[in-house]
Amino acid sequence: MDNISIAPEGTKYNLPTEEEGVQEKKKVLEITEQQRKLGRKIVAVQGMGFVGCVMAIVVADAENEKGHPIYYVHGHQRPSKRSFWKVPVINTGKPPISSSDMEVPELFERCVNQKKNFRATWHDIAYEVADVVVVDIQLDATKPAFGEAEKGYCDVTHFRDGMRTLGQHIKPDCLVLVETTVPPGTSERIVKPIIEEEFKKRGIDVEKYPPLIAHSYERVMPGAKYVKSIRDFWRVYSGVNKESKKRAREFLDDVLDTVNYPITELENTNASEMAKVMENSYRATNIALTLEWARFAEKIGVDLFKVRDAIRKRKGTHDNLLRPSLGVGGYCLTKDPVLANWSMKDVFEIDDELSLAVNSVNINDTMPIHTIDLIKEEYPDLKDVNVTVLGVSYLEDVGDTRHSPSYTLVRLLREFWAEVTCHDSYVEFWAELETEKVYNDLDKVLPEAEVVIFAVGHSEYKEIEPEELVKKCGTKPLIIDCSNFLSDEKIKQYLDLGCKVKGIGKGHIKNL
Amino acid sequence: MDNISIAPEGTKYNLPTEEEGVQEKKKVLEITEQQRKLGRKIVAVQGMGFVGCVMAIVVADAENEKGHPIYYVHGHQRPSKRSFWKVPVINTGKPPISSSDMEVPELFERCVNQKKNFRATWHDIAYEVADVVVVDIQLDATKPAFGEAEKGYCDVTHFRDGMRTLGQHIKPDCLVLVETTVPPGTSERIVKPIIEEEFKKRGIDVEKYPPLIAHSYERVMPGAKYVKSIRDFWRVYSGVNKESKKRAREFLDDVLDTVNYPITELENTNASEMAKVMENSYRATNIALTLEWARFAEKIGVDLFKVRDAIRKRKGTHDNLLRPSLGVGGYCLTKDPVLANWSMKDVFEIDDELSLAVNSVNINDTMPIHTIDLIKEEYPDLKDVNVTVLGVSYLEDVGDTRHSPSYTLVRLLREFWAEVTCHDSYVEFWAELETEKVYNDLDKVLPEAEVVIFAVGHSEYKEIEPEELVKKCGTKPLIIDCSNFLSDEKIKQYLDLGCKVKGIGKGHIKNL
Repeated sequence: MDNISIAPEGTKYNLPTEEEGVQEKKKVLEITEQQRKLGRKIVAVQGMGFVGCVMAIVVADAENEKGHPIYYVHGHQRPSKRSFWKVPVINTGKPPISSSDMEVPELFERCVNQKKNFRATWHDIAYEVADVVVVDIQLDATKPAFGEAEKGYCDVTHFRDGMRTLGQHIKPDCLVLVETTVPPGTSERIVKPIIEEEFKKRGIDVEKYPPLIAHSYERVMPGAKYVKSIRDFWRVYSGVNKESKKRAREFLDDVLDTVNYPITELENTNASEMAKVMENSYRATNIALTLEWARFAEKIGVDLFKVRDAIRKRKGTHDNLLRPSLGVGGYCLTKDPVLANWSMKDVFEIDDELSLAVNSVNINDTMPIHTIDLIKEEYPDLKDVNVTVLGVSYLEDVGDTRHSPSYTLVRLLREFWAEVTCHDSYVEFWAELETEKVYNDLDKVLPEAEVVIFAVGHSEYKEIEPEELVKKCGTKPLIIDCSNFLSDEKIKQYLDLGCKVKGIGKGHIKNL
Repeated sequence: MDNISIAPEGTKYNLPTEEEGVQEKKKVLEITEQQRKLGRKIVAVQGMGFVGCVMAIVVADAENEKGHPIYYVHGHQRPSKRSFWKVPVINTGKPPISSSDMEVPELFERCVNQKKNFRATWHDIAYEVADVVVVDIQLDATKPAFGEAEKGYCDVTHFRDGMRTLGQHIKPDCLVLVETTVPPGTSERIVKPIIEEEFKKRGIDVEKYPPLIAHSYERVMPGAKYVKSIRDFWRVYSGVNKESKKRAREFLDDVLDTVNYPITELENTNASEMAKVMENSYRATNIALTLEWARFAEKIGVDLFKVRDAIRKRKGTHDNLLRPSLGVGGYCLTKDPVLANWSMKDVFEIDDELSLAVNSVNINDTMPIHTIDLIKEEYPDLKDVNVTVLGVSYLEDVGDTRHSPSYTLVRLLREFWAEVTCHDSYVEFWAELETEKVYNDLDKVLPEAEVVIFAVGHSEYKEIEPEELVKKCGTKPLIIDCSNFLSDEKIKQYLDLGCKVKGIGKGHIKNL
């Protein structure tokens, strides 16, 4: 079992042997030679995760004026037990991620099987032949204590290893385009010194061949426009020197729709790295401030959703005011403010703090506690209380469970010894909470429920009629609405059926 | 001198005598009778401050389908030494405030002298005859310690007095429309009990005549669209009961352009009161977060203004991201978060805090310290250093100095014994800092300046050529740009002239 990588659907793949390594290297070199003859430039994408694999097909799908592919793309994935399976899966023409965007499987089929200019590999020879390497390695923030994001940090060990691999293999004039969201300062202070060090070891004159490093962050949004959010969306970029900026610009112009979505060059990579974490911190803070007001609204008989609508009628200055909810999930808003604050303190050693950004993460992370407080007003002792959680992903109508606030909610409910049952039609397997079975059938989770939490606003839940839900439960459950899920009319129906109803930011319920 | 009220331009007015009171009462009653015969309803506006006097003329200027005025307006101003002068000034047809909006003096002239349906009075008889009273009393937050907005509170003594006056005088079916920004809960928990108490004293059956109290906040913006920001702008309102909501709606439909700027009814006055302080807290927080990133940007060679532009290209989600500056001034953003937090704790006795709102006020209030830190990098000892501050108002091209961050800046500079000289073409007299002379002539403030702070982005300053400024100074002053005032080109000119240049959020200067 030590040499096996298992795909989510269960298929087992042996990790490659040394002999297979020799074959793979040969194959990559052969393909590269053929493709160069076709006039194509060679791109390697480092990391076949949520962003890397889609960026890879976007690059592969790019065509010149004659309708011919501009690039051949080697999608590189390390041969780890956890992820090696992606290589054989991609090479059948299937995406290694699930997405509601139909363009994702279309592009994989087209580029792998029809255009035949995209192939996954685990061999580092891909870097040696590349004219451009796009870096899409994951880089996480670690938050060692719940609700104390100020102690958060970024473990760059794995990322540094990835950069060292590049320094050991790439051609001196290869453009390294970092697409990963990184702490400000990463390109200049981490990537550049490592690659220079490896260049020197290889006898490359770094005065003559200064590493070409650029940064251009993605703004991927899960959901039905996944591909578009990479290809047809505004970009920001910069580089550590003039040539890397120029090369990055040329590459991005080739692969993205920079005509309809104009691209912005910033003065240095610190600026473009800062732009990404700042824009996500902005959103994290705007959610956090709404959450504080939601708690206030609940206490004083106010429906914060209506207040928000009223404020947003004032056009131009308040449009970005966000909705309250169970909390904040996903990969970006939960970590980017922490990366920024860590960078300030550790990368640049500045004696200051991004206090609002960090506090916002704390408010957002701990918000599920508030939902439990709402339940406790009716069930002071949660032991053995049957609680049904509807929705475990972090976003409406999407199956992505990364850093989902439902994770915190369910774990805390279990700590109070509640009997928790989870439902989510989009989620087969809850990777972050493997011990928790996620049901796809409402009939399995509602019977005998004493508390029903509408945790995530999946459309499916909006269609449930109060009478039907109460019938399925066979009880008069306490209903908790975490995402402005129930209209006032539906709330009244629940109340008429003898249920109690509470909701995040919905203080007006007691007056209905 | 005890009975004299002095207008800003120097004219002295005697406070009214008892005999004059008798005459004034008679006059108000006579006018009211005449106006009722013309079919006009009677409005009293309580408080002739920045909002009240403009709201009064907007109401007076409102016409019915036949082009006739709908209302006669008594503008009420208490006969205090500080403000009584407003009554005679208004009654000559002149506004008691200065504004760059030409519509302000136009409307005063038209309503006072032509339509003759607006007149100021200091006599409470105005309340007795009114069908509607619009409350525009000032209500401030007190922040007892600099940088500790969490200790802030709202002293409602004066406001309560005003409500008691209304309760003692108004007709039982008079609509009291509170336009003042108030802590959430004010209409229900402060205004209503006081008026009910006074009604009872007067023998009015409050079951039969429950006080008609509504709340609808203004969104006044100083500057060239002052009147429009009251009349032609989105409104929110609510009332303490059905009838007061209905009456408020009718009145607002009469006087505001609710066709082009649809009005929003909220479920209760807590909600509409919350909407106002929340929308301003939203802006205060969005400024504060930018200020934190500005400090970061300065340290790592980044121009935060360019980063902001790059982020805002991402349409629809980040448009409200604000600019860094010297700090935040004005009447609203500096106090509304404090009113909200105080309401939560003191009016509703909730054990919680609007931590982001309060921290934001602290960050904004203390931001001028950061500007001084920038100066200290060049002048560690500020004693006797000649510092010229360009701009003391709180907003570009506006003379409003209320809670201006320049106030904090100048006071702190003086604490360090700097030799401060202030300039502002829009400000004749700095009411909040009476000891500080404000010059209107650059030639008076620039000679021998060792530090020149572009504090406020008045257009006039943008026209100054570096060569001209340096020549006027006769020195090579340190230039501090607090509001993205200088283009990179101008900065380079200053550098070429031998000046040092620093700027809020402009970390790229050192690389120019």
